[in-house]
Amino acid sequence: MSTTTANNTTAPTPPATARPTHPQRTLLGPGPSDVPPAVLAALARPTVGHLDPFFLQTMDELRTRLKQLFRTDNDMTLAVSGTGSAGMETLFVNLLEPGDKVLVGVNGVFGSRMADVAERCGGDVVTLEQPWGSVFTHGEILNAVDREKPALVALVHAETSTGAAQPVAGLGQAIRDRGALFILDCVTSLAGMPVEIDDWLVDAAYSGTQKCLSCPPGLAPITLSDRAVERIDRRKNKVQSWYLDLTMLRNYWGQDRVYHHTAPTNMLVALNEAARLALAEGLEPRWARHRDMHEIVRRGLTELGFAYLTAPEHTLPMLNAVTLPEGLDDATARRSLLDTHGIEVGAGLGPYKGKLWRIGLMGHSATQRNVTLLLAALRELLHAA
Amino acid sequence: MSTTTANNTTAPTPPATARPTHPQRTLLGPGPSDVPPAVLAALARPTVGHLDPFFLQTMDELRTRLKQLFRTDNDMTLAVSGTGSAGMETLFVNLLEPGDKVLVGVNGVFGSRMADVAERCGGDVVTLEQPWGSVFTHGEILNAVDREKPALVALVHAETSTGAAQPVAGLGQAIRDRGALFILDCVTSLAGMPVEIDDWLVDAAYSGTQKCLSCPPGLAPITLSDRAVERIDRRKNKVQSWYLDLTMLRNYWGQDRVYHHTAPTNMLVALNEAARLALAEGLEPRWARHRDMHEIVRRGLTELGFAYLTAPEHTLPMLNAVTLPEGLDDATARRSLLDTHGIEVGAGLGPYKGKLWRIGLMGHSATQRNVTLLLAALRELLHAA
Repeated sequence: MSTTTANNTTAPTPPATARPTHPQRTLLGPGPSDVPPAVLAALARPTVGHLDPFFLQTMDELRTRLKQLFRTDNDMTLAVSGTGSAGMETLFVNLLEPGDKVLVGVNGVFGSRMADVAERCGGDVVTLEQPWGSVFTHGEILNAVDREKPALVALVHAETSTGAAQPVAGLGQAIRDRGALFILDCVTSLAGMPVEIDDWLVDAAYSGTQKCLSCPPGLAPITLSDRAVERIDRRKNKVQSWYLDLTMLRNYWGQDRVYHHTAPTNMLVALNEAARLALAEGLEPRWARHRDMHEIVRRGLTELGFAYLTAPEHTLPMLNAVTLPEGLDDATARRSLLDTHGIEVGAGLGPYKGKLWRIGLMGHSATQRNVTLLLAALRELLHAA
Repeated sequence: MSTTTANNTTAPTPPATARPTHPQRTLLGPGPSDVPPAVLAALARPTVGHLDPFFLQTMDELRTRLKQLFRTDNDMTLAVSGTGSAGMETLFVNLLEPGDKVLVGVNGVFGSRMADVAERCGGDVVTLEQPWGSVFTHGEILNAVDREKPALVALVHAETSTGAAQPVAGLGQAIRDRGALFILDCVTSLAGMPVEIDDWLVDAAYSGTQKCLSCPPGLAPITLSDRAVERIDRRKNKVQSWYLDLTMLRNYWGQDRVYHHTAPTNMLVALNEAARLALAEGLEPRWARHRDMHEIVRRGLTELGFAYLTAPEHTLPMLNAVTLPEGLDDATARRSLLDTHGIEVGAGLGPYKGKLWRIGLMGHSATQRNVTLLLAALRELLHAA
């Protein structure tokens, strides 16, 4: 109790440990993004069983929608019961056997993570490296494939740690001609910029729910081509992860409905709604919205003295990785944005810790209102600094 | 359009593929159980970031509550971003190195699953077997430990495939004296019957959210003793799963808050609420409620001709595994319960497919209303048969 309380009619001072009420943020970081009310409402529908006939229909509907989002006819398209990183691990544990050579493009955190995951699967990992913020030319990639003759080539489409967009169109055929499978990290790109799994001849891709799909984090949409599935069918060893073993998961997601683990039903219902909303908007208009918001925020951020890590032609539309203008202290400014406006932006990772912000305009967060609010809030901060 | 439509003012016939609206079930299977409105509301609160100061407080609160639920002081207590089976895999990938000997008690599906997971980690797995529905005496377990000298002993506390409750109290010291670590599957038991991690000297345990905690499926509470953590600290090899690597996860759940993967924030907020509700009820009253409901349903089921797979002294309170009375066809009767009353009960697994029901009265589902409804619905079914 406060000792300055004059009498007993004063409202009691809350205890120092009282928890604030659940905040409503404006999520403009590298994910999660703001989740639309319809998706939160879907998440909170009464829980149903993982073998309920209604839920099995939901899974079929979700599969169809995920195929539309990935632009693929792949039968093996489903949502893994974990976050995007679990999707990454699912592909490597299933597609790799000990000693298999993997070529991984590393130009940020998520390329490094792929290399780490592949090594833990016993892969013979060769990395192709570029400085953070840069991307790989197709020539660099194919030279490395010719030299190393890997079984798998793994690239990050949208490197969330640097804001770099890896050009992919036209690469798949050349990788296939060289006998390798092509894995693509689409965690941040899916539903926010063109992702064309079939046209690009991508053999396996994974994504997350909390970026441009604007569903809470917790699931990982994945898709695998028939070639990738054949590779799994030819395995000599059991998949090292039971939880992520696609040879079993496909019997639950397929028509046999063989129980594997208790699927996260509420999250899958929510993802089905998020996928419905994305497809109802239309993928092309949704990509255009992300591009339009990016162009507006880019002009504003540049005027305020923020500088992009990436060249304009390789900058992601949904994720702006920018160094700070003079006079802005990273932690203080982020905390002020959060406390004053409820705005979350992301900090830099690795070598860019304290030096870079990652400003996301993803999915439901990619609106003119949020761009205007963010730029106005930053202007206030810079004038106060 | 229907060809029988007489004129254009008739309401259009819905297409044959129209999806039914989201049902409200009464979940009386082996999980998920019914989720209380307060937990669904918590699930649907606005999404917050995984590094948001408010969310980090939530994680601390949740950790404290999970420790209370597990009855432990273990620092390494957290929720894995996957379902109960991911919790199982987390313990084995972290505690096992290739060649380590593991003794696994197998008397149902989940013991077999532990053996499978441990083998995929390179463990030298020895199984101790009992028929489904039976449990292990401490003498049987300790004889096997003396014979095999395993590094780990793994048992299922509540075998959801058979309804058997493995006696655990008093076993931990003897296992510890023999130099092994003791792993316990508490997926179905936690918050529905006594689980005493510290008193029982259990070194590592995992659970799920969708059983007696009555939170949707998707997270796995785990706890590890200091002895178990020391074993992880002495590892020679990297943990084979990146996603489930506790040497990294503890830096996110600990005070350093090092980003690992994007935590499923909505699910964790919901679990925090489910844990709050369980502790607000009080663990002892909650265990008593499960036991009371069990006794009532047992009398009713027995009168109707259902027969328990397990001996009364080893029957789980929250999960009734019963063979069907004559005249009741498994699939037809389960479908009728679902269609007529919205009641879900679980089918038998493995050798008991088609022969057994698994009737769960877990968490929020363990009420007198549900017991009365279930027994009345079964009476109707049997009279109609």
